[in-house]
Amino acid sequence: QLLELMEPLHAADIADLLEQVNAYDRRRLVLLYDRDFDGDILSELDEGIREEVIQLLTPDVLKEAVRDLDSDDVVDLVEYLEEPQQEAILGALEDSDRHAVEQALNYPEESAGRLMQREVVAVPEFWTVGQTIDMMREREDLPEQFYHVILLDPKIRPVGHVTLGKLMASPRRTRLQEITEPAFRTIPAMQDEGEVAYAFNQYHIISAPVVDEEERLVGVITIDDAMIVLDEEHEEDIMRLAGVGEGSLNDRVSETVKQRLPWLAVNLATAVIASMVISLFEDTIAQFVALAVLMPIVASMGGNAGTQALTVAVRAIATKDLTGSNVWRVLRREIMVGLFNGLAFAVIMGIVGLVWFGSPALGGVIAAAMVINLVIAGLAGIAVPVILDKFRIDPALASGTFVTTVTDVVGFFAFLGLAGIVLL
Amino acid sequence: QLLELMEPLHAADIADLLEQVNAYDRRRLVLLYDRDFDGDILSELDEGIREEVIQLLTPDVLKEAVRDLDSDDVVDLVEYLEEPQQEAILGALEDSDRHAVEQALNYPEESAGRLMQREVVAVPEFWTVGQTIDMMREREDLPEQFYHVILLDPKIRPVGHVTLGKLMASPRRTRLQEITEPAFRTIPAMQDEGEVAYAFNQYHIISAPVVDEEERLVGVITIDDAMIVLDEEHEEDIMRLAGVGEGSLNDRVSETVKQRLPWLAVNLATAVIASMVISLFEDTIAQFVALAVLMPIVASMGGNAGTQALTVAVRAIATKDLTGSNVWRVLRREIMVGLFNGLAFAVIMGIVGLVWFGSPALGGVIAAAMVINLVIAGLAGIAVPVILDKFRIDPALASGTFVTTVTDVVGFFAFLGLAGIVLL
Ligand SMILES: [Mg+2]
Ligand SMILES: [Mg+2]
Ligand SMILES: [Mg+2]
Ligand SMILES: [Mg+2]
Ligand SMILES: [Mg+2]
Ligand SMILES: [Mg+2]
Ligand SMILES: [Mg+2]
Ligand SMILES: [Mg+2]
Ligand SMILES: [Mg+2]
Ligand SMILES: [Mg+2]
Ligand SMILES: [Mg+2]
Ligand SMILES: [Mg+2]
Ligand SMILES: [Mg+2]
Repeated sequence: QLLELMEPLHAADIADLLEQVNAYDRRRLVLLYDRDFDGDILSELDEGIREEVIQLLTPDVLKEAVRDLDSDDVVDLVEYLEEPQQEAILGALEDSDRHAVEQALNYPEESAGRLMQREVVAVPEFWTVGQTIDMMREREDLPEQFYHVILLDPKIRPVGHVTLGKLMASPRRTRLQEITEPAFRTIPAMQDEGEVAYAFNQYHIISAPVVDEEERLVGVITIDDAMIVLDEEHEEDIMRLAGVGEGSLNDRVSETVKQRLPWLAVNLATAVIASMVISLFEDTIAQFVALAVLMPIVASMGGNAGTQALTVAVRAIATKDLTGSNVWRVLRREIMVGLFNGLAFAVIMGIVGLVWFGSPALGGVIAAAMVINLVIAGLAGIAVPVILDKFRIDPALASGTFVTTVTDVVGFFAFLGLAGIVLL
Repeated sequence: QLLELMEPLHAADIADLLEQVNAYDRRRLVLLYDRDFDGDILSELDEGIREEVIQLLTPDVLKEAVRDLDSDDVVDLVEYLEEPQQEAILGALEDSDRHAVEQALNYPEESAGRLMQREVVAVPEFWTVGQTIDMMREREDLPEQFYHVILLDPKIRPVGHVTLGKLMASPRRTRLQEITEPAFRTIPAMQDEGEVAYAFNQYHIISAPVVDEEERLVGVITIDDAMIVLDEEHEEDIMRLAGVGEGSLNDRVSETVKQRLPWLAVNLATAVIASMVISLFEDTIAQFVALAVLMPIVASMGGNAGTQALTVAVRAIATKDLTGSNVWRVLRREIMVGLFNGLAFAVIMGIVGLVWFGSPALGGVIAAAMVINLVIAGLAGIAVPVILDKFRIDPALASGTFVTTVTDVVGFFAFLGLAGIVLL
């Protein structure tokens, strides 16, 4: 009954459902399937849950499930599985399919070679529309998904492609070369999948041939798979910016603790550095406890302004909008923004300091520290990610720590230091 | 010469180039084009720069540029332009195209109706493959981009679609109804574009018909446009999480100051609240200045742990992985994560407190405050975004402020309060 209810659901929704119920219900649900478990559900599942579900399936069911998948979906399914599970699935495939999957697995993780499907439609470049259509009518193993017919030169190198729409709308005698798309790109099999996703989004590519080092055709990447990668890259950025390691809602508590701990430890180290700066001014604070009350404000504003600037920079680096040609302009812009925002909040905090503690000198100190820290925040917010990127460190991963350390140290130093000079 | 060099560049790259040079060079570059300015370059440009470039083009060049664009690209180009510029471009279109664009502009901003192209290929549901192919051969205005032939019932409602690949591989006498795709969805024209992008990514849709309230076909959305929206939604999330308003690298300093100021003002308010908590304990601090040195650590660790949890929650809400059915499990999980991380850092900070200041009591106080604040951070990190989402406030937009206010207040209160009890 339940299975009938779930029948109209898309594999992706069934996978989401399996992820959201608890382990007990998941087991019961999976065991309901006897023969016809859809292999796409496995592809859609989160990795941890996926291993759990595969273990629940009998070898026969598993075999049926994976046989209908395209080669890229099988690769996606097995690439991070433990050896025995991987073997079980590869063993269930037909020889030619297994061969295709194994070849893809030979390419490095997160490369175009892992993302491509081996199922392609390619013809010699001198063919006509009629020849191509006849071939397609006769061929029985046409890919589930394809949007272009690829033209190959005698060395099996892609030289162009024709959309199916053009193919269909053209007279049979038309030569394919006359109707190829004006924009045509091939993707090196070793290219990082993030770069592939960027190219699909930047150039609105629907599908593109993947080539080896000799420019020979080895597969095709389609936009639906590139879109998934784009989404994953975004998730990676957003998680890294927040200091959350890889992981998912479905991980066990112990795993999540392990993922988060390193980032908190780094934060602790930076917080201790900030504390050491404060401890330099213990005597000043002992004389003016008001300083202890106000000092987190300057640091906090700097941290926030720095995070604003660094997020803009990290995103702009990811979209290749921040480059060598405009980095100085952007840096100058952020410093100016810091200056103006700093001046605005200097006025506000000067008044707050004056009214709350009745001390014009204290108001002046916090105002001056605010301007200094917000300018530094703009500077560090751009400079840190740009420099990290130069050293090929992911700016999303490490910028936050550096920038907030800078703004904490500068914030406390400027505020307490100026206070020491002015108030004592 | 320069134009020849730029000839092989994709419109998107030319647009990026125009964005990255300064206004003077941009002007010179644009004025180099006389007749053949590619309309796609305009679509690819950032909005601010786009207006600038349109002003540089003569009416004739502009007319030529926009005539070749698909209706969805024209909509994207004009939807946020000032009235006179919009008029100029609409006036340059042929009547039927202008009509299509105006109809799309009648749908609300960021709706599926704005995203769709009007150019569709649709046939009666009872047609055969042969009829369809003959129609396509004869029709002269086939869309630049299409991947499916849509089947319509007599009331012009889409009832299924056929991929071009299947169409081409099937014998002419095959009825289209026999070869429709098993998964088929239509998109309501009023649906939010973010939901559209989610559906394309979740269900790996390549193109889908858009329908009005009576389920009648009004257009088609293709995955390349959905991918752009997905990218924009991500950008929005990442920017909102960092408290950066809408804006781009190309905005003027004054605009950026205006975008950032409100968020900094909100942060100032929360920082002042934290300061007020501290001021409750001025006497305690006056007696133990070490408290002033250590107190930012507890708050900072809480803020970081809270940001980790809230980022996970915001992302999971966006991907619909955090729902009513698992919110309690996720909440419990985060609280446990906070507890274990809190205990780990309690031990470390207890030792630091002891060694640095030689006071076991101070070590105990900071350890206890750390556990309390990290548990609260996990709780607030999940609860705040979930509650905001319930009230239909974008959790990416406001969660950070609430969560860090909570962790600041709890952090200072727990640390200084416990210190007051234990040390005095
Ligand atoms: Mg899922
Ligand atoms: Mg598939
Ligand atoms: Mg992968
Ligand atoms: Mg990657
Ligand atoms: Mg695929
Ligand atoms: Mg990245
Ligand atoms: Mg770009
Ligand atoms: Mg651009
Ligand atoms: Mg739009
Ligand atoms: Mg939106
Ligand atoms: Mg389009
Ligand atoms: Mg959103
Ligand atoms: Mg999902």
